[in-house]
Amino acid sequence: MGTEERLEKQLDFILEVDKCKQIFRQTYLSDGSRKENDAEHSWHLALMCALLGEYANEPIDKLRTMTMVLIHDIIEIDAGDTYAYDEAGNATKREREVKAADRIFSLLPKDQAAYMREIWEEFEAGETPEAKFALTMDKVQPLLLNDATGGRAWREHGIRVSQVLKRNEKTAEGAVKLWEHAAGLIEKNVELGNLRDDRSKEET
Amino acid sequence: MGTEERLEKQLDFILEVDKCKQIFRQTYLSDGSRKENDAEHSWHLALMCALLGEYANEPIDKLRTMTMVLIHDIIEIDAGDTYAYDEAGNATKREREVKAADRIFSLLPKDQAAYMREIWEEFEAGETPEAKFALTMDKVQPLLLNDATGGRAWREHGIRVSQVLKRNEKTAEGAVKLWEHAAGLIEKNVELGNLRDDRSKEET
Repeated sequence: MGTEERLEKQLDFILEVDKCKQIFRQTYLSDGSRKENDAEHSWHLALMCALLGEYANEPIDKLRTMTMVLIHDIIEIDAGDTYAYDEAGNATKREREVKAADRIFSLLPKDQAAYMREIWEEFEAGETPEAKFALTMDKVQPLLLNDATGGRAWREHGIRVSQVLKRNEKTAEGAVKLWEHAAGLIEKNVELGNLRDDRSKEET
Repeated sequence: MGTEERLEKQLDFILEVDKCKQIFRQTYLSDGSRKENDAEHSWHLALMCALLGEYANEPIDKLRTMTMVLIHDIIEIDAGDTYAYDEAGNATKREREVKAADRIFSLLPKDQAAYMREIWEEFEAGETPEAKFALTMDKVQPLLLNDATGGRAWREHGIRVSQVLKRNEKTAEGAVKLWEHAAGLIEKNVELGNLRDDRSKEET
Protein backbone atom coordinates (compact mmCIF):
# COMPACT_ATOMS: atom_id res chain seq x y z
CA MET A 1 0.00 0.00 0.00
CA GLY A 2 1.36 3.46 -0.88
CA THR A 3 1.62 6.17 1.76
CA GLU A 4 -1.22 8.06 0.14
CA GLU A 5 -3.55 5.06 0.24
CA ARG A 6 -2.55 4.37 3.86
CA LEU A 7 -3.28 7.95 4.88
CA GLU A 8 -6.61 7.88 3.04
CA LYS A 9 -7.66 4.80 5.01
CA GLN A 10 -6.61 6.42 8.29
CA LEU A 11 -8.53 9.58 7.48
CA ASP A 12 -11.61 7.59 6.39
CA PHE A 13 -11.61 5.97 9.83
CA ILE A 14 -11.07 9.33 11.54
CA LEU A 15 -14.07 10.79 9.71
CA GLU A 16 -16.20 7.68 10.32
CA VAL A 17 -15.73 7.86 14.09
CA ASP A 18 -17.00 11.45 14.03
CA LYS A 19 -20.38 9.68 14.34
CA CYS A 20 -19.59 8.94 18.01
CA LYS A 21 -20.52 12.58 18.65
CA GLN A 22 -24.11 11.70 17.78
CA ILE A 23 -24.48 8.60 19.96
CA PHE A 24 -26.15 9.63 23.17
CA ARG A 25 -25.88 7.82 26.46
CA GLN A 26 -28.42 7.84 29.31
CA THR A 27 -26.17 9.87 31.60
CA TYR A 28 -26.77 13.62 31.85
CA LEU A 29 -23.99 16.21 31.78
CA SER A 30 -23.13 17.57 35.23
CA ASP A 31 -25.33 20.64 34.63
CA GLY A 32 -28.27 18.40 33.71
CA SER A 33 -28.87 20.27 30.45
CA ARG A 34 -28.73 17.25 28.15
CA LYS A 35 -27.45 13.69 27.82
CA GLU A 36 -23.81 12.95 27.14
CA ASN A 37 -22.51 11.49 23.89
CA ASP A 38 -19.87 8.80 23.39
CA ALA A 39 -17.12 11.15 22.16
CA GLU A 40 -17.46 13.43 25.19
CA HIS A 41 -17.65 10.45 27.53
CA SER A 42 -14.49 8.94 26.03
CA TRP A 43 -12.64 12.26 26.28
CA HIS A 44 -13.59 12.47 29.95
CA LEU A 45 -12.33 8.92 30.61
CA ALA A 46 -9.01 9.63 28.86
CA LEU A 47 -8.47 12.71 30.99
CA MET A 48 -9.31 10.65 34.09
CA CYS A 49 -6.64 8.13 33.02
CA ALA A 50 -4.16 11.00 32.91
CA LEU A 51 -5.08 12.16 36.41
CA LEU A 52 -6.11 9.08 38.39
CA GLY A 53 -3.53 6.51 37.29
CA GLU A 54 -1.91 6.65 40.71
CA TYR A 55 -4.90 4.76 42.15
CA ALA A 56 -4.57 1.76 39.82
CA ASN A 57 -4.27 -1.50 41.80
CA GLU A 58 -1.47 -2.65 39.49
CA PRO A 59 0.95 -0.57 37.40
CA ILE A 60 -0.65 0.35 34.06
CA ASP A 61 0.65 1.39 30.64
CA LYS A 62 -1.04 4.77 30.57
CA LEU A 63 -0.82 5.29 26.81
CA ARG A 64 -2.46 1.92 26.14
CA THR A 65 -5.17 2.57 28.74
CA MET A 66 -5.87 6.00 27.31
CA THR A 67 -6.08 4.62 23.76
CA MET A 68 -8.42 1.92 25.07
CA VAL A 69 -10.89 4.38 26.57
CA LEU A 70 -10.69 6.61 23.48
CA ILE A 71 -11.91 3.77 21.25
CA HIS A 72 -13.94 1.60 23.67
CA ASP A 73 -17.31 2.85 22.46
CA ILE A 74 -16.79 3.36 18.73
CA ILE A 75 -18.52 0.05 17.97
CA GLU A 76 -21.68 1.86 19.10
CA ILE A 77 -21.67 3.67 15.75
CA ASP A 78 -23.30 0.50 14.40
CA ALA A 79 -24.41 -1.27 17.57
CA GLY A 80 -25.95 1.73 19.35
CA ASP A 81 -25.63 2.55 23.03
CA THR A 82 -27.11 -0.18 25.21
CA TYR A 83 -28.26 1.28 28.52
CA ALA A 84 -26.54 -0.49 31.41
CA TYR A 85 -29.91 -1.51 32.86
CA ASP A 86 -31.57 -2.65 29.60
CA GLU A 87 -31.66 -6.44 30.00
CA ALA A 88 -33.06 -7.30 26.57
CA GLY A 89 -30.53 -5.00 24.88
CA ASN A 90 -27.66 -6.49 26.84
CA ALA A 91 -28.59 -10.02 25.73
CA THR A 92 -27.74 -9.20 22.08
CA LYS A 93 -25.04 -6.62 22.82
CA ARG A 94 -21.94 -8.73 22.21
CA GLU A 95 -23.15 -10.03 18.85
CA ARG A 96 -24.04 -6.56 17.61
CA GLU A 97 -20.77 -5.12 18.84
CA VAL A 98 -18.55 -7.77 17.25
CA LYS A 99 -20.21 -7.18 13.89
CA ALA A 100 -19.64 -3.45 14.33
CA ALA A 101 -15.99 -3.98 15.26
CA ASP A 102 -15.51 -6.10 12.12
CA ARG A 103 -16.70 -3.25 9.92
CA ILE A 104 -15.37 -0.18 11.69
CA PHE A 105 -11.81 -1.24 12.57
CA SER A 106 -11.30 -2.68 9.08
CA LEU A 107 -11.51 0.83 7.65
CA LEU A 108 -7.96 1.27 8.98
CA PRO A 109 -4.76 -0.06 7.37
CA LYS A 110 -4.34 -3.73 8.40
CA ASP A 111 -1.71 -3.20 11.11
CA GLN A 112 -3.70 -0.46 12.83
CA ALA A 113 -6.99 -2.34 12.39
CA ALA A 114 -5.43 -5.31 14.19
CA TYR A 115 -3.98 -3.07 16.92
CA MET A 116 -7.26 -1.28 17.60
CA ARG A 117 -9.25 -4.50 17.50
CA GLU A 118 -6.82 -6.09 19.94
CA ILE A 119 -7.16 -3.15 22.34
CA TRP A 120 -10.96 -3.24 22.07
CA GLU A 121 -11.08 -7.00 22.72
CA GLU A 122 -8.73 -6.49 25.67
CA PHE A 123 -11.13 -3.93 27.09
CA GLU A 124 -14.08 -6.26 26.58
CA ALA A 125 -12.28 -9.19 28.25
CA GLY A 126 -11.35 -7.00 31.23
CA GLU A 127 -8.43 -9.12 32.36
CA THR A 128 -5.29 -6.98 32.03
CA PRO A 129 -4.44 -4.19 34.50
CA GLU A 130 -5.09 -1.68 31.68
CA ALA A 131 -8.51 -3.13 30.85
CA LYS A 132 -9.48 -3.30 34.53
CA PHE A 133 -8.50 0.33 35.07
CA ALA A 134 -10.28 1.44 31.87
CA LEU A 135 -13.41 -0.34 33.08
CA THR A 136 -13.14 1.39 36.45
CA MET A 137 -13.00 4.77 34.68
CA ASP A 138 -15.98 3.76 32.51
CA LYS A 139 -18.03 2.95 35.61
CA VAL A 140 -16.89 5.76 37.92
CA GLN A 141 -17.41 8.60 35.44
CA PRO A 142 -21.19 8.12 35.06
CA LEU A 143 -21.45 7.73 38.86
CA LEU A 144 -19.82 11.16 39.22
CA LEU A 145 -22.24 12.67 36.70
CA ASN A 146 -25.25 10.92 38.20
CA ASP A 147 -24.28 12.20 41.63
CA ALA A 148 -23.78 15.73 40.26
CA THR A 149 -27.27 15.75 38.72
CA GLY A 150 -29.09 14.43 41.78
CA GLY A 151 -29.31 10.97 40.26
CA ARG A 152 -31.42 12.21 37.35
CA ALA A 153 -30.85 9.28 34.96
CA TRP A 154 -31.42 6.80 37.84
CA ARG A 155 -34.64 8.47 38.89
CA GLU A 156 -35.95 8.63 35.34
CA HIS A 157 -35.41 4.90 34.92
CA GLY A 158 -36.40 3.92 38.49
CA ILE A 159 -33.03 2.23 39.01
CA ARG A 160 -32.55 0.10 42.14
CA VAL A 161 -29.32 0.12 44.15
CA SER A 162 -28.88 -3.64 43.63
CA GLN A 163 -28.70 -2.97 39.87
CA VAL A 164 -25.99 -0.35 40.34
CA LEU A 165 -24.00 -2.60 42.66
CA LYS A 166 -24.26 -5.54 40.26
CA ARG A 167 -23.19 -3.29 37.39
CA ASN A 168 -20.19 -2.29 39.50
CA GLU A 169 -19.11 -5.69 40.79
CA LYS A 170 -15.76 -5.37 38.96
CA THR A 171 -15.16 -1.65 39.50
CA ALA A 172 -12.84 -2.27 42.47
CA GLU A 173 -10.61 -4.53 40.34
CA GLY A 174 -9.08 -1.52 38.55
CA ALA A 175 -8.72 0.78 41.55
CA VAL A 176 -9.98 -0.10 45.04
CA LYS A 177 -9.60 3.47 46.25
CA LEU A 178 -11.79 4.85 43.48
CA TRP A 179 -14.42 2.18 44.02
CA GLU A 180 -14.54 3.03 47.74
CA HIS A 181 -15.23 6.63 46.82
CA ALA A 182 -17.84 5.63 44.24
CA ALA A 183 -19.52 3.27 46.73
CA GLY A 184 -19.85 6.24 49.10
CA LEU A 185 -21.58 8.22 46.34
CA ILE A 186 -23.97 5.32 45.74
CA GLU A 187 -24.91 5.17 49.44
CA LYS A 188 -25.38 8.93 49.51
CA ASN A 189 -27.79 8.67 46.57
CA VAL A 190 -29.73 5.86 48.23
CA GLU A 191 -30.15 8.07 51.29
CA LEU A 192 -31.28 10.95 49.09
CA GLY A 193 -33.87 8.72 47.44
CA ASN A 194 -32.21 8.99 44.02
CA LEU A 195 -31.68 5.23 43.93
CA ARG A 196 -34.35 2.78 45.11
CA ASP A 197 -33.14 0.74 48.07
CA ASP A 198 -34.15 -2.85 47.33
CA ARG A 199 -31.55 -4.51 49.55
CA SER A 200 -33.64 -5.17 52.66
CA LYS A 201 -36.16 -6.99 50.47
CA GLU A 202 -33.43 -9.25 49.06
CA GLU A 203 -32.23 -10.17 52.54
CA THR A 204 -35.65 -11.38 53.76
CA MET B 1 -2.61 16.61 52.15
CA GLY B 2 -4.41 13.35 52.93
CA THR B 3 -5.32 10.90 50.18
CA GLU B 4 -9.00 11.75 50.58
CA GLU B 5 -8.36 15.47 50.15
CA ARG B 6 -6.13 14.79 47.15
CA LEU B 7 -8.80 12.66 45.50
CA GLU B 8 -11.47 15.27 46.22
CA LYS B 9 -9.38 17.90 44.43
CA GLN B 10 -8.84 15.61 41.45
CA LEU B 11 -12.55 14.84 41.22
CA ASP B 12 -13.47 18.53 41.56
CA PHE B 13 -11.29 19.23 38.54
CA ILE B 14 -12.77 16.28 36.65
CA LEU B 15 -16.29 17.58 37.27
CA GLU B 16 -15.30 21.17 36.46
CA VAL B 17 -13.97 20.24 33.01
CA ASP B 18 -17.33 18.61 32.23
CA LYS B 19 -18.19 22.17 31.13
CA CYS B 20 -16.03 21.65 28.01
CA LYS B 21 -18.98 19.68 26.63
CA GLN B 22 -20.96 22.92 26.47
CA ILE B 23 -18.36 25.08 24.73
CA PHE B 24 -19.19 25.10 21.05
CA ARG B 25 -16.75 25.76 18.25
CA GLN B 26 -17.52 27.15 14.80
CA THR B 27 -16.79 23.84 13.05
CA TYR B 28 -19.73 21.60 12.15
CA LEU B 29 -19.77 17.83 12.73
CA SER B 30 -19.11 15.85 9.55
CA ASP B 31 -22.87 15.31 9.04
CA GLY B 32 -23.48 19.06 9.31
CA SER B 33 -26.16 18.58 11.97
CA ARG B 34 -24.65 20.89 14.58
CA LYS B 35 -21.45 22.55 15.74
CA GLU B 36 -18.78 20.61 17.58
CA ASN B 37 -17.91 21.16 21.23
CA ASP B 38 -14.49 21.27 22.87
CA ALA B 39 -14.72 17.85 24.55
CA GLU B 40 -15.60 16.08 21.30
CA HIS B 41 -12.94 18.01 19.42
CA SER B 42 -10.29 17.05 21.99
CA TRP B 43 -11.34 13.39 21.89
CA HIS B 44 -10.99 13.45 18.12
CA LEU B 45 -7.49 14.97 18.33
CA ALA B 46 -6.37 12.38 20.90
CA LEU B 47 -7.52 9.56 18.65
CA MET B 48 -5.68 11.21 15.74
CA CYS B 49 -2.52 11.25 17.89
CA ALA B 50 -2.95 7.49 18.38
CA LEU B 51 -3.29 6.86 14.64
CA LEU B 52 -1.21 9.49 12.86
CA GLY B 53 1.92 9.66 15.04
CA GLU B 54 3.92 7.98 12.26
CA TYR B 55 3.74 11.22 10.24
CA ALA B 56 5.35 13.39 12.94
CA ASN B 57 8.41 15.21 11.58
CA GLU B 58 10.33 14.36 14.76
CA PRO B 59 9.81 11.49 17.22
CA ILE B 60 7.13 12.38 19.75
CA ASP B 61 6.19 11.19 23.23
CA LYS B 62 2.70 10.01 22.34
CA LEU B 63 1.33 9.99 25.90
CA ARG B 64 2.43 13.57 26.46
CA THR B 65 1.02 14.67 23.10
CA MET B 66 -2.27 12.94 23.79
CA THR B 67 -2.53 14.50 27.26
CA MET B 68 -1.75 17.87 25.66
CA VAL B 69 -4.62 17.68 23.17
CA LEU B 70 -6.99 16.38 25.86
CA ILE B 71 -6.48 19.52 27.96
CA HIS B 72 -5.53 22.14 25.35
CA ASP B 73 -8.95 23.79 25.29
CA ILE B 74 -10.10 23.55 28.90
CA ILE B 75 -9.12 27.17 29.51
CA GLU B 76 -12.10 27.97 27.25
CA ILE B 77 -14.39 27.12 30.19
CA ASP B 78 -13.63 30.66 31.37
CA ALA B 79 -12.13 32.27 28.27
CA GLY B 80 -14.69 31.00 25.73
CA ASP B 81 -13.95 29.74 22.24
CA THR B 82 -12.33 32.41 20.10
CA TYR B 83 -13.08 31.76 16.42
CA ALA B 84 -9.87 31.43 14.45
CA TYR B 85 -10.87 34.32 12.20
CA ASP B 86 -12.15 36.70 14.91
CA GLU B 87 -9.44 39.38 14.99
CA ALA B 88 -10.80 41.39 17.91
CA GLY B 89 -11.27 38.23 19.98
CA ASN B 90 -7.80 37.03 19.21
CA ALA B 91 -6.25 40.30 20.43
CA THR B 92 -7.37 39.62 24.01
CA LYS B 93 -7.21 35.80 23.82
CA ARG B 94 -3.92 35.20 25.60
CA GLU B 95 -4.80 37.39 28.58
CA ARG B 96 -8.20 35.73 29.04
CA GLU B 97 -6.72 32.27 28.68
CA VAL B 98 -3.90 32.78 31.20
CA LYS B 99 -6.42 33.97 33.78
CA ALA B 100 -8.53 30.88 33.06
CA ALA B 101 -5.50 28.59 33.37
CA ASP B 102 -4.67 30.15 36.75
CA ARG B 103 -8.09 29.27 38.11
CA ILE B 104 -8.85 25.93 36.45
CA PHE B 105 -5.55 24.09 36.83
CA SER B 106 -5.27 25.20 40.46
CA LEU B 107 -8.30 23.07 41.29
CA LEU B 108 -5.91 20.10 41.06
CA PRO B 109 -3.40 19.00 43.73
CA LYS B 110 -0.26 21.15 43.36
CA ASP B 111 1.90 18.59 41.53
CA GLN B 112 -0.77 17.83 38.95
CA ALA B 113 -1.73 21.49 38.61
CA ALA B 114 1.92 22.26 37.78
CA TYR B 115 2.13 19.34 35.33
CA MET B 116 -1.04 20.27 33.48
CA ARG B 117 -0.10 23.95 33.39
CA GLU B 118 3.33 23.06 32.01
CA ILE B 119 1.78 20.92 29.28
CA TRP B 120 -0.70 23.66 28.38
CA GLU B 121 2.05 26.31 28.23
CA GLU B 122 4.11 23.92 26.10
CA PHE B 123 1.19 23.63 23.69
CA GLU B 124 0.77 27.39 23.57
CA ALA B 125 4.49 27.98 22.93
CA GLY B 126 4.47 25.41 20.11
CA GLU B 127 8.18 24.72 20.21
CA THR B 128 8.63 21.05 21.20
CA PRO B 129 7.97 18.18 18.77
CA GLU B 130 4.94 17.23 20.89
CA ALA B 131 3.48 20.74 20.83
CA LYS B 132 4.10 21.06 17.10
CA PHE B 133 2.36 17.77 16.40
CA ALA B 134 -0.55 18.63 18.72
CA LEU B 135 -0.95 21.91 16.87
CA THR B 136 -0.96 20.08 13.54
CA MET B 137 -3.78 17.84 14.82
CA ASP B 138 -5.65 20.90 16.10
CA LYS B 139 -5.47 22.51 12.65
CA VAL B 140 -5.98 19.44 10.44
CA GLN B 141 -9.08 18.11 12.26
CA PRO B 142 -11.30 21.14 11.54
CA LEU B 143 -10.04 21.12 7.92
CA LEU B 144 -11.28 17.52 7.63
CA LEU B 145 -14.66 18.47 9.08
CA ASN B 146 -14.92 21.62 6.97
CA ASP B 147 -14.13 19.59 3.86
CA ALA B 148 -16.71 16.92 4.85
CA THR B 149 -19.44 19.57 5.24
CA GLY B 150 -18.77 21.37 1.96
CA GLY B 151 -16.95 24.15 3.79
CA ARG B 152 -20.07 25.12 5.73
CA ALA B 153 -18.38 27.11 8.52
CA TRP B 154 -16.13 28.86 5.97
CA ARG B 155 -19.08 29.81 3.77
CA GLU B 156 -21.12 31.08 6.71
CA HIS B 157 -18.29 33.38 7.74
CA GLY B 158 -17.16 34.28 4.20
CA ILE B 159 -13.65 33.05 4.95
CA ARG B 160 -10.88 33.80 2.43
CA VAL B 161 -8.19 31.28 1.51
CA SER B 162 -5.46 33.69 2.62
CA GLN B 163 -6.94 33.59 6.14
CA VAL B 164 -6.89 29.78 6.19
CA LEU B 165 -3.32 29.68 4.89
CA LYS B 166 -2.17 32.24 7.46
CA ARG B 167 -3.92 30.27 10.20
CA ASN B 168 -2.03 27.20 8.99
CA GLU B 169 1.43 28.67 8.55
CA LYS B 170 2.82 26.35 11.25
CA THR B 171 0.79 23.23 10.46
CA ALA B 172 3.62 21.67 8.43
CA GLU B 173 5.99 21.97 11.42
CA GLY B 174 4.35 19.03 13.16
CA ALA B 175 3.87 16.75 10.16
CA VAL B 176 4.75 17.82 6.60
CA LYS B 177 2.86 14.88 5.11
CA LEU B 178 -0.38 15.79 6.89
CA TRP B 179 -0.04 19.44 5.92
CA GLU B 180 0.42 18.44 2.26
CA HIS B 181 -2.82 16.50 2.44
CA ALA B 182 -4.59 19.37 4.20
CA ALA B 183 -3.27 21.87 1.66
CA GLY B 184 -4.84 19.72 -1.05
CA LEU B 185 -8.18 19.90 0.75
CA ILE B 186 -7.88 23.67 0.98
CA GLU B 187 -7.26 23.96 -2.78
CA LYS B 188 -10.18 21.64 -3.50
CA ASN B 189 -12.43 23.88 -1.41
CA VAL B 190 -11.21 26.99 -3.20
CA GLU B 191 -12.10 25.34 -6.51
CA LEU B 192 -15.53 24.38 -5.16
CA GLY B 193 -16.14 27.98 -4.10
CA ASN B 194 -16.30 27.07 -0.40
CA LEU B 195 -13.35 29.37 0.33
CA ARG B 196 -13.02 32.79 -1.27
CA ASP B 197 -9.90 32.99 -3.43
CA ASP B 198 -8.25 36.32 -2.58
CA ARG B 199 -4.74 35.37 -3.61
CA SER B 200 -4.64 36.90 -7.11
CA LYS B 201 -5.65 40.24 -5.60
CA GLU B 202 -2.77 40.08 -3.13
CA GLU B 203 -0.26 39.43 -5.89
CA THR B 204 -1.19 42.50 -7.94
